[in-house]
Amino acid sequence: MNFGIIRYILGLVVDLEGVLLLFPGLVAYLYHEKEGYSFLLVSIVCLILGTISIIKKPKDREFYSKEGFVVVALSWVVLSIFGALPMYLCGDIEQYIDALFETVSGFTTTGASIADNVEIFSHATNFWRCFTHWIGGMGVLVFILAIITPSNGGYSMHLMKAESPGPSVSKIVPRIKDTAKILYKIYFFMTLAQMVCLLIAGMPLFDAICTAVGTAGTGGFGIKADSMASYNAAIQIIVTVFMILFGVNFNAYYILLKAKEKKAAFEIEEVRVYFLIIFMSIALITINICNDVKNIGYTIRHTAFQVGSIITTTGFATKDFNTWPQLSRAILVLIMFVGACAGSTGGGMKVSRLIILIKSAKREISYFIHPRCIKTIKMDGKTVEKEQVRDVHAFFVTYVMIFVGSVLIVSLDNFDAVTNFTSVAATFNNIGPGLNVVGPTGNFAQFSVLSKIVLMLDMLAGRLEIYPMLLLFMPKAWTRN
Amino acid sequence: MNFGIIRYILGLVVDLEGVLLLFPGLVAYLYHEKEGYSFLLVSIVCLILGTISIIKKPKDREFYSKEGFVVVALSWVVLSIFGALPMYLCGDIEQYIDALFETVSGFTTTGASIADNVEIFSHATNFWRCFTHWIGGMGVLVFILAIITPSNGGYSMHLMKAESPGPSVSKIVPRIKDTAKILYKIYFFMTLAQMVCLLIAGMPLFDAICTAVGTAGTGGFGIKADSMASYNAAIQIIVTVFMILFGVNFNAYYILLKAKEKKAAFEIEEVRVYFLIIFMSIALITINICNDVKNIGYTIRHTAFQVGSIITTTGFATKDFNTWPQLSRAILVLIMFVGACAGSTGGGMKVSRLIILIKSAKREISYFIHPRCIKTIKMDGKTVEKEQVRDVHAFFVTYVMIFVGSVLIVSLDNFDAVTNFTSVAATFNNIGPGLNVVGPTGNFAQFSVLSKIVLMLDMLAGRLEIYPMLLLFMPKAWTRN
Repeated sequence: MNFGIIRYILGLVVDLEGVLLLFPGLVAYLYHEKEGYSFLLVSIVCLILGTISIIKKPKDREFYSKEGFVVVALSWVVLSIFGALPMYLCGDIEQYIDALFETVSGFTTTGASIADNVEIFSHATNFWRCFTHWIGGMGVLVFILAIITPSNGGYSMHLMKAESPGPSVSKIVPRIKDTAKILYKIYFFMTLAQMVCLLIAGMPLFDAICTAVGTAGTGGFGIKADSMASYNAAIQIIVTVFMILFGVNFNAYYILLKAKEKKAAFEIEEVRVYFLIIFMSIALITINICNDVKNIGYTIRHTAFQVGSIITTTGFATKDFNTWPQLSRAILVLIMFVGACAGSTGGGMKVSRLIILIKSAKREISYFIHPRCIKTIKMDGKTVEKEQVRDVHAFFVTYVMIFVGSVLIVSLDNFDAVTNFTSVAATFNNIGPGLNVVGPTGNFAQFSVLSKIVLMLDMLAGRLEIYPMLLLFMPKAWTRN
Repeated sequence: MNFGIIRYILGLVVDLEGVLLLFPGLVAYLYHEKEGYSFLLVSIVCLILGTISIIKKPKDREFYSKEGFVVVALSWVVLSIFGALPMYLCGDIEQYIDALFETVSGFTTTGASIADNVEIFSHATNFWRCFTHWIGGMGVLVFILAIITPSNGGYSMHLMKAESPGPSVSKIVPRIKDTAKILYKIYFFMTLAQMVCLLIAGMPLFDAICTAVGTAGTGGFGIKADSMASYNAAIQIIVTVFMILFGVNFNAYYILLKAKEKKAAFEIEEVRVYFLIIFMSIALITINICNDVKNIGYTIRHTAFQVGSIITTTGFATKDFNTWPQLSRAILVLIMFVGACAGSTGGGMKVSRLIILIKSAKREISYFIHPRCIKTIKMDGKTVEKEQVRDVHAFFVTYVMIFVGSVLIVSLDNFDAVTNFTSVAATFNNIGPGLNVVGPTGNFAQFSVLSKIVLMLDMLAGRLEIYPMLLLFMPKAWTRN
């Protein structure tokens, strides 16, 4: 393990957080809120600590995937620890553990909250909560790669691999730094586009900014107690569309922007299956919950919102789906696990993993019928490497085990089984709300400290796709060689 | 697809059922019950139909794994269809669909019942219910292989593979026929041993026979309304011990009987992990539910019973674990999925699959730390073949998908989520009772016909380890070539 380079990268991350904390400081200044001082104070501390850490450049340039995973995991932990401080210091959140939960939930784009009523928070805190979604959505180290580091260090690929969601990192262009830049550009302009749409639809500026950054990161922190329920229909439709768009593999947008064959963007298998699942879920739930054909339009609109919100793992709500019939609830829980596309800002298992899992299972069954027929798994016309299939399977197994272990520990709090199950599902998949106690109208405040810690680790493991967090706890990963 | 040989084997199966139905007929005769005539009638019908089917020997001897899977699946369906008739005809069960549910539940060693009170059933019906567990436990075609067929046809290995539980069939001895014989001998004498123990402990003869055959098949149909709760402590302990013993890989018993190195029986990795899981579960649940240290012995005894009953997928009960705290309930649901050892009469995913899944996930993680290190997965000192690992993974994926699909359909009945989830868990893993509506004091009668059909298919898919049932529904499997 190359500790020098880990210190250096962590320094960059803390420095970056120092700069980012100035934005909520500015919000506080504009709204004349005294809470701004806490944000400024922590910002200064971050800048000092970060700068100290990067004064000495690391001598040893050795950097393997092991270092990549560990440094990404540590970065996110450090980001959360400092990011929680101002909300605690300014008094908006009483307990530090709750502030930390809220911050981890923010950076990991989960949106699970411990707050009974977010409307009592200062504008600075509410802006920071939503802003963390935007930072976490595309990734902190991806940002550092795109903007700060002068050139491609040997480590860029490993960092990108560890922080980007999906079974494989597709380098859009040969240089990782350029890929990171393109991704952030698309991300920025799509966020801006949504903001403009929301303003036109009549949303106040502050709300539009918070909602746009929250949607872009597929986060889900609301700044209203009822999430998105009280906004007008136009705003809800805009949010629905953008949630679903931010769940699309960003490769599709790159192809639309740059490639000659724009049609290819619509032929990506993952994107097609993603839209198919969304369509099917909306159809089934609409049939299941619609009592009166006259309300069909209204029902479809709200169903589309909740489905889009859950499958992209955003977590906004316009209806309390907790009160829906069991089939609809089961479908929502199911798409919690499916999640969005790889290479999007969404969480969950990712549609492409699902496709690979199903195809490999189908292949196995066909061996019983034609034992001597050798088959490869294809996606988008290309053969999926054996190693990748194996990796997806191992991911699935690890995913299930962590899930089961977490449910067991959370069960100690003795809430009902659905609450325990969906609280882990909602955090591990970075969604936010679950069912029953943690439903859209509930929150996570009532859990014990132990459960909160487990759920925080789940959120981080979910966002970083398990392995970086796992390696953090493996002594073997920390040896020097 | 070789239809001639399928007809022939199905004929043998129906003939065998005709003979087996004479046993409940005898029970009815001894108890002077008129219900016996229904059993005799169906027995005669079976014998006639079966004999007609086997008069013409199949010309074409071609028999591949595809034929093996299909014929095993069809056999079990046919067995259930005929086996349900007498209970319906004699009036013990009012609806044929319920009688079919009860019979499928019996043969698949599930033990999920539609009966409010089994004590109103005739002795013949109750004996038949328990006896189906015994028949299904070790397998019908395994029995035919062991006893009836004169020599090893080319098909014995394929039949054994399709009907025996576990990721791989271990041929104890080179000839499949001999392996089947040895397995049935061990099975028979262990059942007898339990029967004797139960009689000594004071159980009435009829109860002892029914309980012993039900335990041996890890079935779980009770003949009392309160399952095993009203029997004395000695009986409960005997049942606990034998449930756990019937969940052990039968290879261990063969080694104990025949091998020179008897120690090897205790060194089988799967068996060790199986006992470790049982021990851990008992310990955790005891800590979780024991309020008073003075009752520790009592608590351990009942905890051991429920844990043994669930992990071996038997499904007897002495306590209503529905009322236990959430952690204990969650542990029980978890071990529902683990199941017993491969090569036992128990259901579930099987401990050896779990071991392979965990080991392959661990290997994948170690690649992040040492990317260039090539590792194989070992079990009992031997390398697990790549194909087998792949197969276990595909099994796991298919398992999860069928599970999810079943829960979605059952959700249409709009019971609570825990009922929906555990009703599928309890049938797919061939356990019997789940939680809430289908808890130890509940039953499956309230489900819709659609749900009952789904749950029956789940039971069959669970017992036959998915693929045979899947192939039954694949048009590709039915082509002639």
